[in-house]
Amino acid sequence: MSYFDAASAVPLHPVAREALLASLDEGWADPARPYREGRRARLLLDAAREAAAEAVGCRPDELVFTPSGTQAVHSAMSGTLAARRRVGRHLVHSAVEHSSVLHAAAAHEAAGGTVTEVGVDRTGRVAAGDLAAALRPDTALAALQSANHEVGTEQPVEEAAAACREADVPLLVDAAQSLPWGPVGGAWSLLTASAHKWGGPPGVGLLAVRKGTRFAPQGPQDERESGRVPGFGNLPAVVAAAASLRAVRAEAAAEAVRLRELVDRVRTRVAETVPDTEVVGDPVRRLPHLVTFSCLYVDGETLLHALDRAGFSVSSGSSCTSSTLTPSHVLRAMGVLSEGNVRVSLPPGTAEADVDRFLDMLPEAVRSVREQLGAPAAARPEATPSPAAEHVVDALGKRCPVPVIELAKVIGDVPVGATLTVLADDEAARLDIPAWCGMRGQEYVGERAAGQGTAYVVRRLV
Amino acid sequence: MSYFDAASAVPLHPVAREALLASLDEGWADPARPYREGRRARLLLDAAREAAAEAVGCRPDELVFTPSGTQAVHSAMSGTLAARRRVGRHLVHSAVEHSSVLHAAAAHEAAGGTVTEVGVDRTGRVAAGDLAAALRPDTALAALQSANHEVGTEQPVEEAAAACREADVPLLVDAAQSLPWGPVGGAWSLLTASAHKWGGPPGVGLLAVRKGTRFAPQGPQDERESGRVPGFGNLPAVVAAAASLRAVRAEAAAEAVRLRELVDRVRTRVAETVPDTEVVGDPVRRLPHLVTFSCLYVDGETLLHALDRAGFSVSSGSSCTSSTLTPSHVLRAMGVLSEGNVRVSLPPGTAEADVDRFLDMLPEAVRSVREQLGAPAAARPEATPSPAAEHVVDALGKRCPVPVIELAKVIGDVPVGATLTVLADDEAARLDIPAWCGMRGQEYVGERAAGQGTAYVVRRLV
Repeated sequence: MSYFDAASAVPLHPVAREALLASLDEGWADPARPYREGRRARLLLDAAREAAAEAVGCRPDELVFTPSGTQAVHSAMSGTLAARRRVGRHLVHSAVEHSSVLHAAAAHEAAGGTVTEVGVDRTGRVAAGDLAAALRPDTALAALQSANHEVGTEQPVEEAAAACREADVPLLVDAAQSLPWGPVGGAWSLLTASAHKWGGPPGVGLLAVRKGTRFAPQGPQDERESGRVPGFGNLPAVVAAAASLRAVRAEAAAEAVRLRELVDRVRTRVAETVPDTEVVGDPVRRLPHLVTFSCLYVDGETLLHALDRAGFSVSSGSSCTSSTLTPSHVLRAMGVLSEGNVRVSLPPGTAEADVDRFLDMLPEAVRSVREQLGAPAAARPEATPSPAAEHVVDALGKRCPVPVIELAKVIGDVPVGATLTVLADDEAARLDIPAWCGMRGQEYVGERAAGQGTAYVVRRLV
Repeated sequence: MSYFDAASAVPLHPVAREALLASLDEGWADPARPYREGRRARLLLDAAREAAAEAVGCRPDELVFTPSGTQAVHSAMSGTLAARRRVGRHLVHSAVEHSSVLHAAAAHEAAGGTVTEVGVDRTGRVAAGDLAAALRPDTALAALQSANHEVGTEQPVEEAAAACREADVPLLVDAAQSLPWGPVGGAWSLLTASAHKWGGPPGVGLLAVRKGTRFAPQGPQDERESGRVPGFGNLPAVVAAAASLRAVRAEAAAEAVRLRELVDRVRTRVAETVPDTEVVGDPVRRLPHLVTFSCLYVDGETLLHALDRAGFSVSSGSSCTSSTLTPSHVLRAMGVLSEGNVRVSLPPGTAEADVDRFLDMLPEAVRSVREQLGAPAAARPEATPSPAAEHVVDALGKRCPVPVIELAKVIGDVPVGATLTVLADDEAARLDIPAWCGMRGQEYVGERAAGQGTAYVVRRLV
């Protein structure tokens, strides 16, 4: 079995396991109690906070432990937005933030706030200038991830933080994906992270609020965690999280070099050996361990199952793997192909041989899925245009990747220079038809509403 | 070392430890993922939910896991109050609920809601009729604990639930203290609990919302836990929590009998061997493992330290052990003595010999604290009244138990039938001076504002 979904969760680090076991014995009591079991728990908690703060690059009294990275993000946003309500209710975030940021932004908007989403380029990168331009006198908070969780692209956090500082707007950095690899530089105001992303136990998030940042925790609170996280803390897990972060950091530099090479190998080999595939995300300014690609004419769910049967666990941003049947918002914001999407994120210690096995089996797995779907084999349409007056593909009711497959099957019937209309009601078509045009050298003319669905117009150029 | 603070937290149950270790290996992946590590995690999560639901007495799809009992209470209250907003914004709760309920009630009130607090008798028990009488047409929610966390008194939950059902008001039962001992009967609508109270790991709370109860989770949510608890779950801890609840329940009946006898021994022996002590809480309708008493003329913090040095870990509701320097709200609601307060809560497996050791050393520990404070040794004032026109004790600026000690020292100077005024600004005096009068057979006349503090008037009767 090869588990290649580190961006979702990684198995417990041996140091975390050891620390967890020790602190189950030493740290089960309430650290707020004055008797010896409580004092012992308090010492463990203080030490864990110091270690985690050092890894984050903040003061221990600026850091609290939350039940998850998601709750850290929610608290960070609600606490800052409430504290700065007099300044205004405008929130700025990038279009490729983690869903926890988007959910909190939606709640803010539902409560009467305003939100500006800053777009990204085709690599998934925000331009710091775009973020700076979105700041207004009434902006209460800006949020920018350190690196993207789906495509690995690093964001210009230091420049964004400088622009925010200039505009006197606090910047929240969701560092969930990058914190295992190193601290986040720059003058950020708030930072969040999640322990199970670095081999700590689940149930622990980090929330750092730098001194001088206005912050008003929302909802009922108690005396725990500086009044920022109510309820009895998860001390054994907190101790394990802090210990493993330190351990992971000690190995990070060497492991980053090694995994970066393996990911480069995936990027190159996939492009070479799997036809009609788009490798996405910034090839250089990226997380060391993560690569994402999309395969034309492939059903992401079927491919994931095939890879799972072959012993590889990966994830996907394709619409068919989502409960909402929409493609990942990250791929949408980038404007790249979403069908047959595969995210490979290598846990520390991944063996080179396992990556090679993956690369060896992938072309056949993709070919087999395409064959099942009856996808066109040829990379170019055959030049046998039909003289039909109107070229329409009715793909209504058909799910990704079928509309694109239907399009590819009939483009050869269209004379060069003429247009073809695809009728589709699947959300992925909006992303994948233009992406197909780009990959095939055809022109994407545009879309218009058409009954129950949408009409996508394509002009054959080659 | 004898740890007698089970009501705060208990060490990890061996079954919890075993389940935690196994599920750290088997359950670290995201249960929402379709690959085999995810499917394995999903199976563990489903099994844990079934086991916990069976112990609670609800359906698995009515139960979600939260990061703590406190967060379960906060979610239960905000979710119900929001969903029933059209009915009204009136909340009813007992005066002796856990602070998590009080904090959520305060937040509700701050947001424009109204709150009725239902009082208790001197044993800490709510009359179901009082709760029923507090329900109004605009009551959105009522909250009543199954048993009190500070004095162990059981509440009439079944009668309260019936009254709420009659009035079409949902009842939330905070079962944190009683769930290890058995399910909560009656037609409650919502129930909360906390795993570290039964030997499960910290970081796990339970929230049951029975079908038919209107519920609208507040704040940003995601697809986790039926949309009621956002963020990556704490699966290994959840598995350990469910396994240990089942294990604890298997031992509960026998252990309850054994601990009940030990607690009865504490109740009897403390009253016999420690002079000027009030054992509080219902002697019969109570948790099996918990007993609370208060010692006149004793500084709770000093006594706790003395007990800690002697190897006993207990807690206290005295003002001097609280960060806010106010006595426990539970003791205040009961109107009982708060100074020198000690809560003994025995973890399962507590050895009889340890309880006897505690009972053997307690009288000397209390005597010694009283001696340090210069407390009056005699149980009755000596009859040497002074003819002074006005008897005033100025205890302004003095902390519990000093005002009561000063009162006891001079009452002998007051002629029978005359009054004595104690000036004090310590919050505990409001509770402890009337309690002292009750214990001493003197008349508590009343209080009035007096400059920076309060004047408490006592009439000497004996």
